[in-house]
Amino acid sequence: MTGTLTIVGVGPGRSELMTPSASAAIAAATDLIGYGPYLDRVTLHPGQIRHASDNRVELERARHALTLASEGRNVAVVSGGDPGVFAMAAAVFEAIETGRPEWRDLDIQVEPGVTAMLAAAADVGAPLGGDFCAISLSDNLKSWATIRRRLEAAAGADFVIALYNPLSKARPHQLGEAFTLLRQLKPASTVVVMVRAAGSGDVSRIITTLGEVDPAKADMRTLVLIGSTATRLIARDGKPPFVYTLRREVEDGR
Amino acid sequence: MTGTLTIVGVGPGRSELMTPSASAAIAAATDLIGYGPYLDRVTLHPGQIRHASDNRVELERARHALTLASEGRNVAVVSGGDPGVFAMAAAVFEAIETGRPEWRDLDIQVEPGVTAMLAAAADVGAPLGGDFCAISLSDNLKSWATIRRRLEAAAGADFVIALYNPLSKARPHQLGEAFTLLRQLKPASTVVVMVRAAGSGDVSRIITTLGEVDPAKADMRTLVLIGSTATRLIARDGKPPFVYTLRREVEDGR
Repeated sequence: MTGTLTIVGVGPGRSELMTPSASAAIAAATDLIGYGPYLDRVTLHPGQIRHASDNRVELERARHALTLASEGRNVAVVSGGDPGVFAMAAAVFEAIETGRPEWRDLDIQVEPGVTAMLAAAADVGAPLGGDFCAISLSDNLKSWATIRRRLEAAAGADFVIALYNPLSKARPHQLGEAFTLLRQLKPASTVVVMVRAAGSGDVSRIITTLGEVDPAKADMRTLVLIGSTATRLIARDGKPPFVYTLRREVEDGR
Repeated sequence: MTGTLTIVGVGPGRSELMTPSASAAIAAATDLIGYGPYLDRVTLHPGQIRHASDNRVELERARHALTLASEGRNVAVVSGGDPGVFAMAAAVFEAIETGRPEWRDLDIQVEPGVTAMLAAAADVGAPLGGDFCAISLSDNLKSWATIRRRLEAAAGADFVIALYNPLSKARPHQLGEAFTLLRQLKPASTVVVMVRAAGSGDVSRIITTLGEVDPAKADMRTLVLIGSTATRLIARDGKPPFVYTLRREVEDGR
């Protein structure tokens, strides 16, 4: 088999945040597969075939991509952000492991990208400046008990926390439940940042505290950052504050 | 003041992994400041001034950059990977908070980039496919007790773990100590990946297990990934295995 499959991260939104390596992978593909809004971000040239799909059929989309590659096509699976972070890459490898043996012999590559938490952090300063963790609040594929356990561990060890997939129409209450849990474990003064459409042309952000944050202000395009004890605000005249996390600890006084 | 300061992530190594937005920020600068090897990755045009420095004087370098910007220069602070992840951005904001009041009025931007763990993950498959955390093993700025506490929390909640700064000449034993601790908390069969110079032209990787891993094979350019219970290998004929983390849980059997 001579087909190829590249899982390409197109970054968080603006085309200037897509790497040249990702652009080249897309330009070299005969077939582009992905969730429609991600495919809309790339310009096709004549002869390239576009296979748009719904956002919730990841394994099916992965198998479709692998089938095309096994037929000799050069396939790009187009993923938002970084394909390895709560995006398409894991689904493709799951499809390979559970699929036809010859799929393992295909030329499979992953093109990394700027994932949403990096764009969101850059938008407000440097809130990921210390140790941090990334948790998807979606319980489509894992239990809410596991999510709670991870939030508790992250709070207990004073990680900065990045929340992906904070809520959706089908899961409207999860971000609020996460905030309720974290309020029992972290100070009400903890810095919380909600960046919507990070890295896109219509970014917006809310900088608040764990005590004050309103989960109704988030939607499925929002990336939520919850600070550690070392996360601080720098006030500015007439502008929103900078948010950053000290590289050193503050537990012993500062 | 009309100066600007942009903290630019040049990505993990290959220039094709630097975003066009980062390239544009560098091209627009009058002055480039950074650790020499990162500055070596960018091409200067005539008239641009290069201020190279050692890797361990981050606050001093940040203050130099802010001073130049306050004098009206357009300064790019050049950082490897993503500037917000164990890199220069937090140092710049710390310098702003503790520095001259007028520095807060400067036009400060952060240009995100592909951080090392994303390039390392892409190199081997999709090991960051589930919830994960990123921990710097450097105890220059935090205590080893805090690092231990975070490793324990990450193991207990079954996060995938990305370790930055695993060791250095001044800290030769820390990665070995981290593995010793994690062996008490996680199965010996846990997948471990060590990727050296991820995202560069001379990348190399070791795919092994927590029981077998040799910390002496890592150096300061190595990114270490330690799997969760859902991290798996896909064997291939004549090629290294793919490594990925299932999006769903495996605790209840699979």
